[in-house]
Amino acid sequence: MTGIIDVALRAGVAKSTASRALSGNGYVSEETRERVQRAARELAYSAHSSATSLATGRTSTIGVIMPLVDRWYFSELLAGIQQALIADGLDLALYGAAEGSAERERMLDHALAGRRFDGLIAVCLQPGAHELERLIGTGLPLVSVGPFSEHADVVAIDDVAAARVATEHLIDLGHEDVVFLGDVPGADQFSFGERKRLDGYRQAMIAAGLEDRIRMAPTHSTIPEAFATAAALLADRRHRPTAIAAVCDEAAVGAIIAAQRLGIRVPSELSVIGVDDHRYADMFSLTTIRQNPREQGVEAVRLLRARMQDPEAPIEHVIAPAQLVARQSTAAPRTQSDG
Amino acid sequence: MTGIIDVALRAGVAKSTASRALSGNGYVSEETRERVQRAARELAYSAHSSATSLATGRTSTIGVIMPLVDRWYFSELLAGIQQALIADGLDLALYGAAEGSAERERMLDHALAGRRFDGLIAVCLQPGAHELERLIGTGLPLVSVGPFSEHADVVAIDDVAAARVATEHLIDLGHEDVVFLGDVPGADQFSFGERKRLDGYRQAMIAAGLEDRIRMAPTHSTIPEAFATAAALLADRRHRPTAIAAVCDEAAVGAIIAAQRLGIRVPSELSVIGVDDHRYADMFSLTTIRQNPREQGVEAVRLLRARMQDPEAPIEHVIAPAQLVARQSTAAPRTQSDG
Repeated sequence: MTGIIDVALRAGVAKSTASRALSGNGYVSEETRERVQRAARELAYSAHSSATSLATGRTSTIGVIMPLVDRWYFSELLAGIQQALIADGLDLALYGAAEGSAERERMLDHALAGRRFDGLIAVCLQPGAHELERLIGTGLPLVSVGPFSEHADVVAIDDVAAARVATEHLIDLGHEDVVFLGDVPGADQFSFGERKRLDGYRQAMIAAGLEDRIRMAPTHSTIPEAFATAAALLADRRHRPTAIAAVCDEAAVGAIIAAQRLGIRVPSELSVIGVDDHRYADMFSLTTIRQNPREQGVEAVRLLRARMQDPEAPIEHVIAPAQLVARQSTAAPRTQSDG
Repeated sequence: MTGIIDVALRAGVAKSTASRALSGNGYVSEETRERVQRAARELAYSAHSSATSLATGRTSTIGVIMPLVDRWYFSELLAGIQQALIADGLDLALYGAAEGSAERERMLDHALAGRRFDGLIAVCLQPGAHELERLIGTGLPLVSVGPFSEHADVVAIDDVAAARVATEHLIDLGHEDVVFLGDVPGADQFSFGERKRLDGYRQAMIAAGLEDRIRMAPTHSTIPEAFATAAALLADRRHRPTAIAAVCDEAAVGAIIAAQRLGIRVPSELSVIGVDDHRYADMFSLTTIRQNPREQGVEAVRLLRARMQDPEAPIEHVIAPAQLVARQSTAAPRTQSDG
C-alpha cells in the first residue's frame, strides 16, 4: 500500500506538509495542496482516516442536525454550511429527520453514542423535546441556528421583529383586518421561529389597537398546505381579510396562488406579505422580509470553528440581518367606494 | 472516562453485545439496543468511533455525492437515503456541491483522499467530468442514482421512456406544435437525465411524423427560470405552441405560472405536461409522469448494502417505476372554429 511518504516524495514536499495538505488541518499554500492531491491521486493513495483521527484525536467531521431539507430555508442554509466546511477541509455528516419522529430519536442517540464529530450544528431544534439540552450535554462544540440558548453560540434572525415589521407594513398601508397564516401553537411542526413570528404579529396588532382583530389561519408552512388553507379562508366572502401576514414566503406564495385561483386580485383586493425572500418571491412580486440563510450557514461554521479553537470563549449570539423588501403584493386596502 | 465495560455492566449484557448495540454493526434485539443506549446515555459514555473504526476496518459512514439539495428530486431522494441509513445504523456524510464548481472538485478530492467511507452513493453525476469513473476507481462499494455504468449498481427511471410517453400523450390529444422546455445540450447544468428526456421527446415527435416541428425552449429547470423562459415563449403570439412538454415538473409549473400571468388558459389554450409528480403538481392540476425519488433513495441503500456484503455479486441495474398521471393541465388543442 502506498504510504504518505510516497506521496510526499512524488509531490516533492516534506512528509508533514503532505499530511497537512491531505488532512486539511494546518496551513499549506493552494498550489502545494493541489500538487500533493494530484500526487495522491496518481498513486491511488488512501489515507486511513480513522488512523489519522486516532492520532490527532480529531475526526474532521461536523455533525449537522436539521429537519429534512425539503424547504428553501434548510436547503439554502445547508448549502452555506457545506460551502464553508469544504473550504475548511471538513466533512459534513447530515442528520436529517422530522421533529418528533422515531427516526429523529434514533438519529440523536446514534449521533451522540459515538464521539464521531469535532463539532455540531443544530438547526431549528424544537424546544419541547429538549434536544438542544441533550446536545449541549455532550460537551462538544455546538452552534444553534434558530433557537436561543444561554449555553450555546447562536445565529438567528430576530423572528419577533421580522413578523412585527411585516405586520406593521400592512397596518401602515391602512389594513385592519390582517390574518396570520402559519403554524399555530399545538401543531406538530410548530417551531421556535414560528412561535416568535406569531408573537411579532400579535405585538404589532396590539400596538395598533387591533387586538380584537387578531385572527389566525392555522396551516403547515408549505406552499401546497398554505394554498389549501388560504383557499378555504378566502372562499368565505363574508369573513375574507383584506391582508395576510404569512409566517414565511412559502405560506405567502400558497396564499397568492389561492387568490389567483379564486379570481381575487393581489394587491388591489388582497395584500400578502411573507418572511424570507424565497427564490420564488420575485416571480410572485411578493413583498417580504429578506433574510439570507446561506450566509447564516457560513456564519454558523465561523462560530463553530471559533468555539473549537477556544472552548472557553464567551458565548456569542449573532443576529443575522433581515429587512423589508417592498414588491407589488401589498397596497392600501380598497375603500367601500372602490368596490 | 467511562468504558464500554461500564455500559455493558449497567445494561446487564456482555461487552460484545454492548459493542454491537452501540456500533450498529451486527445483530442485537431492539430491546437490548435500547437498554444499552440508555445505559450509555446515563453514563455519558462516548465511544471513540475512530478507535472502533480502526479495530473493525469500518467507518459505518456512507458518502453521498449530489448536487445541492435545493430541488424537490434531490431533497426527496436524500430523505429516502437518510431514512434507510438510519434504520441500518449508518451515518450519512453529505458532499453537496454544484457540478463543475471548484468546490465540487475539491470535495471529490477530499472524499477520495481518505478512506472515510464504507460505501458511496453518487447522485446524478455528470458524464462529462468522469466523476463516476473516478469514484469507481476507488474500489469502494458504489451505487449510481441516475447515470448508468457497466461498472456500478444503478437505480434510475427510464428517462427516455418518461419523456416519450409524456410527449405521446400530447400528440394523442391532437397537438402538433409541442415545444420541449428544459435544459439543452451545451448548458452548464445539462445532466444525463435531461439529455435522455430530450431524446424521448424527439423520438415521439419523429415517430408521429412531426420531425419538422421539433422545437426547444432552453432553460434551467427551476420554477423561476422556466417561468421567465416560458413567459418569453408564450408572449410571442405568432409562434406560441399549443403544448409544452417540460423536462420536469418544476419547469412545467413555471410554464403554468407564466401562462396565468399572460392570461392564457390552461388547458384550453395551452397544454402542459411534466415529469416527476412534484409536491406542487396537484396544486397546479398538472398532468405528469410520476416517479418516487424517496423510494429510489431507499432502493439505492438496499443495493449498496448488498454490494458491501458481496463485492463480487453481478452488477444490478434497477429501473424505478414511472407512470402517467392525468390531471387537468392537458386537453385537446382548440380548433380554429373554437377561437
